[in-house]
Amino acid sequence: MLLVMNKNATPEEIDAVIAAIKEQGYVPRPIPGGERVSIGILYNKGPIDGSLFLGMPGVNEAIPVTRPYKLVSREIQPKGTIVRVGDALIGNGHFTIIAGPCAVESEFQSLTIAEKVKKAGADMFRGGAFKPRTSPYAFQGLGLEGLKILAKVREATGMPVVTEVLDLENFALVEEYADVVQIGTRNMQNFSLLKRAGLSKKPILLKRGMAATVEEWLMAAEYILAEGNSQVILCERGVRTFVNHSRNTLDLSAVPVVRNESHLPIIIDPSHAAGRRDQVAPLGRAAVAVGAHGIMVEVHHDPGKALSDGAQSLYPEQFEVLARQARSIYKNLQENS
Amino acid sequence: MLLVMNKNATPEEIDAVIAAIKEQGYVPRPIPGGERVSIGILYNKGPIDGSLFLGMPGVNEAIPVTRPYKLVSREIQPKGTIVRVGDALIGNGHFTIIAGPCAVESEFQSLTIAEKVKKAGADMFRGGAFKPRTSPYAFQGLGLEGLKILAKVREATGMPVVTEVLDLENFALVEEYADVVQIGTRNMQNFSLLKRAGLSKKPILLKRGMAATVEEWLMAAEYILAEGNSQVILCERGVRTFVNHSRNTLDLSAVPVVRNESHLPIIIDPSHAAGRRDQVAPLGRAAVAVGAHGIMVEVHHDPGKALSDGAQSLYPEQFEVLARQARSIYKNLQENS
Amino acid sequence: MLLVMNKNATPEEIDAVIAAIKEQGYVPRPIPGGERVSIGILYNKGPIDGSLFLGMPGVNEAIPVTRPYKLVSREIQPKGTIVRVGDALIGNGHFTIIAGPCAVESEFQSLTIAEKVKKAGADMFRGGAFKPRTSPYAFQGLGLEGLKILAKVREATGMPVVTEVLDLENFALVEEYADVVQIGTRNMQNFSLLKRAGLSKKPILLKRGMAATVEEWLMAAEYILAEGNSQVILCERGVRTFVNHSRNTLDLSAVPVVRNESHLPIIIDPSHAAGRRDQVAPLGRAAVAVGAHGIMVEVHHDPGKALSDGAQSLYPEQFEVLARQARSIYKNLQENS
Amino acid sequence: MLLVMNKNATPEEIDAVIAAIKEQGYVPRPIPGGERVSIGILYNKGPIDGSLFLGMPGVNEAIPVTRPYKLVSREIQPKGTIVRVGDALIGNGHFTIIAGPCAVESEFQSLTIAEKVKKAGADMFRGGAFKPRTSPYAFQGLGLEGLKILAKVREATGMPVVTEVLDLENFALVEEYADVVQIGTRNMQNFSLLKRAGLSKKPILLKRGMAATVEEWLMAAEYILAEGNSQVILCERGVRTFVNHSRNTLDLSAVPVVRNESHLPIIIDPSHAAGRRDQVAPLGRAAVAVGAHGIMVEVHHDPGKALSDGAQSLYPEQFEVLARQARSIYKNLQENS
Repeated sequence: MLLVMNKNATPEEIDAVIAAIKEQGYVPRPIPGGERVSIGILYNKGPIDGSLFLGMPGVNEAIPVTRPYKLVSREIQPKGTIVRVGDALIGNGHFTIIAGPCAVESEFQSLTIAEKVKKAGADMFRGGAFKPRTSPYAFQGLGLEGLKILAKVREATGMPVVTEVLDLENFALVEEYADVVQIGTRNMQNFSLLKRAGLSKKPILLKRGMAATVEEWLMAAEYILAEGNSQVILCERGVRTFVNHSRNTLDLSAVPVVRNESHLPIIIDPSHAAGRRDQVAPLGRAAVAVGAHGIMVEVHHDPGKALSDGAQSLYPEQFEVLARQARSIYKNLQENS
Repeated sequence: MLLVMNKNATPEEIDAVIAAIKEQGYVPRPIPGGERVSIGILYNKGPIDGSLFLGMPGVNEAIPVTRPYKLVSREIQPKGTIVRVGDALIGNGHFTIIAGPCAVESEFQSLTIAEKVKKAGADMFRGGAFKPRTSPYAFQGLGLEGLKILAKVREATGMPVVTEVLDLENFALVEEYADVVQIGTRNMQNFSLLKRAGLSKKPILLKRGMAATVEEWLMAAEYILAEGNSQVILCERGVRTFVNHSRNTLDLSAVPVVRNESHLPIIIDPSHAAGRRDQVAPLGRAAVAVGAHGIMVEVHHDPGKALSDGAQSLYPEQFEVLARQARSIYKNLQENS
Repeated sequence: MLLVMNKNATPEEIDAVIAAIKEQGYVPRPIPGGERVSIGILYNKGPIDGSLFLGMPGVNEAIPVTRPYKLVSREIQPKGTIVRVGDALIGNGHFTIIAGPCAVESEFQSLTIAEKVKKAGADMFRGGAFKPRTSPYAFQGLGLEGLKILAKVREATGMPVVTEVLDLENFALVEEYADVVQIGTRNMQNFSLLKRAGLSKKPILLKRGMAATVEEWLMAAEYILAEGNSQVILCERGVRTFVNHSRNTLDLSAVPVVRNESHLPIIIDPSHAAGRRDQVAPLGRAAVAVGAHGIMVEVHHDPGKALSDGAQSLYPEQFEVLARQARSIYKNLQENS
Repeated sequence: MLLVMNKNATPEEIDAVIAAIKEQGYVPRPIPGGERVSIGILYNKGPIDGSLFLGMPGVNEAIPVTRPYKLVSREIQPKGTIVRVGDALIGNGHFTIIAGPCAVESEFQSLTIAEKVKKAGADMFRGGAFKPRTSPYAFQGLGLEGLKILAKVREATGMPVVTEVLDLENFALVEEYADVVQIGTRNMQNFSLLKRAGLSKKPILLKRGMAATVEEWLMAAEYILAEGNSQVILCERGVRTFVNHSRNTLDLSAVPVVRNESHLPIIIDPSHAAGRRDQVAPLGRAAVAVGAHGIMVEVHHDPGKALSDGAQSLYPEQFEVLARQARSIYKNLQENS
């Protein structure tokens, strides 16, 4: 932490800040500059709350220097984590494709889509049994029935399944059926849910909050690792901006940043970022090229009748092209790096 | 819902869309324009999912026309809701001040601050027993002990207390101690929590999500009303933007919009919007002038030692000035409207 | 400038950075921390380009410490600037109301509106002769004819006039007729125009760019002051965010920030922020309460027929109420501070 | 245009709106819905200003239906435009790489970099002679001397050169030396400059404003085409959002949107989006995969000594890898589409 004083801060104000730093058990290091004094705070363990000093007379800014995360940091674990899910590997040197409908609607629907995406090259199947919906009057998912359908999909196709958990109440249930438990964008800072996920034996797919910084996102993952579960897959799905031609703005620069800062795998969900079918394949290809460890794509065999998010679901034949292009770009990059 | 077709949409494409609308049980109404055809969807009950049609060939845009919310809408209940909490009234014709520390830290701290804010004119006391924190290593609140301290504050001062609930697990506990149960910005779309709040007998203070549109916020309130609890107070606390001189950007235009769209009371939290003490009082005064039904302000008698958010907490003497100015502006506006 | 090194930066990397700082003529000051080294850069005159060091091996971050602006800074001129325009004073201890139509449409229109706003208490008149329009096919303003109409308004009412300049080509012309020359939001970083404004004898009203930080805005003003014109009025008019219920999001926290950082007066334009009539008066009142030195409001006697921005123009009778409320709040605050 | 009335709009209010539409020479078409009336506006030529109606009693929303742009629209010209610059082709079926330093600093610097990027596969050279800088105290470019150096680069390497124009005053000069005249992000809505560009014989590279919607960007291009110059290349360079790990957030979804809406070529500038070297190559690769017609990349042989934007400049050897990967992905996609 660096505290920057006002130009006209008095010696008394500076001394008071120094005393306050010592009171917290830290070591102050004043740095006289040409025009103003700054005070470094040293030998702290873990992050410092700048607000402790920000309100003191003469203090202009409190600038964090140390990264607040520990367990997720690549500084602590240089080697990239590989998450194993059944036969699928996610992370460091692997490229993984997850596909399926937004919501599990019926056994017929899920098996139909699962067979098509498997044939097209998907490694894992996705589908929501519990759906977070903006409106209380919208379809909320099949619940337990949906989970059972997912189990049948796994049995029939051999693909591991990813599905979302919404609350503590249903965590054990979801955990029982899912191969990967997803925590959605609206729950990224649902800290009770994160702590519970940290006690799970199943890998967690943690979506970025739609207004979260990468730092906040990594801190959310830190909650999970801090409880003992190190199998976390990060998933960028677009952030909220003024841009109105897509539902969210896909922040692909998060990929090199996360890969630099953390050892956890990061995948991209182009479907929720776009919100429109015609942007999904281009963004999915871009995700490979930018260096993501995988993509998660919504596919529906009859999107006009989908109970949610039909407009952003690819037709199976569109997904087949995307999967082929994605694998080809991935291979191409490995040969050209 | 209005579906706008491409300029070069074929008659076959238009017919297919018309057929799809009928299949959903709605009434299509084609509107030939100078350059392109639009198709209105009529006689629907409740909102239509545009994604059902957005992916069809020839469809360019799906524009929602009907508002998605019902119970929170002023079109359904023209008269403004007044929420009664002990002796305090919030909404329609009343101006309410809620004040207290970010977190309950000790009985001494809470009682000290409570006496000061009450003397300065606060109607209600706020303080967190369960704290949502970005870092798993930060102070997470006193929990049950904090709730008991809040009960003592109520007993000692007569002020009703507002405190936050983080999860289903602790809802019954928080509900037992609190006069108003707060749902925080990170939980605005925690739909399980919203449904539980809808079953509560206590008023709910629902903060706006930091990237939520007003429509999404009102839909979150709709979840609560749909379960039977109509005592909801909305609280604007700033949204996330590119602006970096405040922690969030206070969106005061939300006040006239909410007052126009909904009968629910709306208050402002300038402390979390600002994140810096020197912006809190100006924004608090602006909140009155823009027409909010109240303000909620963080106050600490010794902010340099606060366990959270010290930098944005007013000193009691600063709060006293703000409370006086706020009431004076409110009175002034009533005399000049 | 503070350079933060990676945790695993080598002594050689640190030495190379120290050498590079010296090469630029600055003084390096290494600050060993618990986990990583930071290096302060001291005794620089003016801001340092962090990019000089950011790309060097082992460097993690370059954090600016010194503010980049000089002449606009309150650290350099503690007393608030008062801009005099005819009989009107703007800044430090004065509250000024500017009103008029978006565009000058005709002599009749302008004189009609001018008389009404003057009677309602406006200090100055605004109206565009050259209009920046998103579409090349929209009304672009009356040009010289509009300027002549503004001169007649001044003659008839005694009110000074504010009007916008779009380019270097017409600067001399606009300057000749206007009492205050406005530089619009789209031109905030039109540096050639800013330099020309710095050579003008007329006060400049500088609107904030719709995606500008306060720092960039003050740097734009610095361009004007650096050329010799110190009569600059800043005008906040909303920034672009994800929020879609108003055209822009009015950033009222900019007012305390600018008042703290700079000696220049700051006013608010609630009309362009809102883009809708029903939000203008509430935001205009909030502008007074937050501490702005004035407001600039669009008024039209027949907004349904306005050639631009009719939807956000107040009716004269609405403006009369707003002007009365604004002055009353201002007086109230002076009595209660 | 579709006007949506309030639920409780009276027949008189509806009639008044219908009369107002007729008064403007348009054809009103009322559409009674289940809960509220909407009124379509038909047979208009060009876009309608919704503000004409938005302020009328009973009107809730004015929703534009027709796109406001004409000449840039793919609906008018289905075939993609190809811009020819010397031997280089940009657009429809071609992939073009532009590279060079942020600013022309000296003949030695420019020739050194030019030779390296040409050898690595660049088609065109970029370099600023007039630099838009946030600070008036920063290096502002070499001006005419810089233009002359660009001419030497063209002569020595055969590469066409791209350079930025800042104002009307220097347009003729820049036009004389440049092969492609760039209009920068801060000038995207400098309408005088756009009109002047429309009269030029040289192709124009139009960067997206940092807070511009795609619609506003295309309307800016429309200004150029409307004056007669149809040789416009669009360049996405990131937009301003809350995200703070990159200087701007690269909006790659703009590529499929622009390609769908317009016949103009669109390229990507990953350097200004990132603002940090380590994100440039990943974003540059993503640009190819998303379907851009080219990339423009900053390269410097000694970025630690660059006079501007050194931190985001690639080393020549990094650029060589990026150029190779980009061409390989492009070829790969052509073979797999």
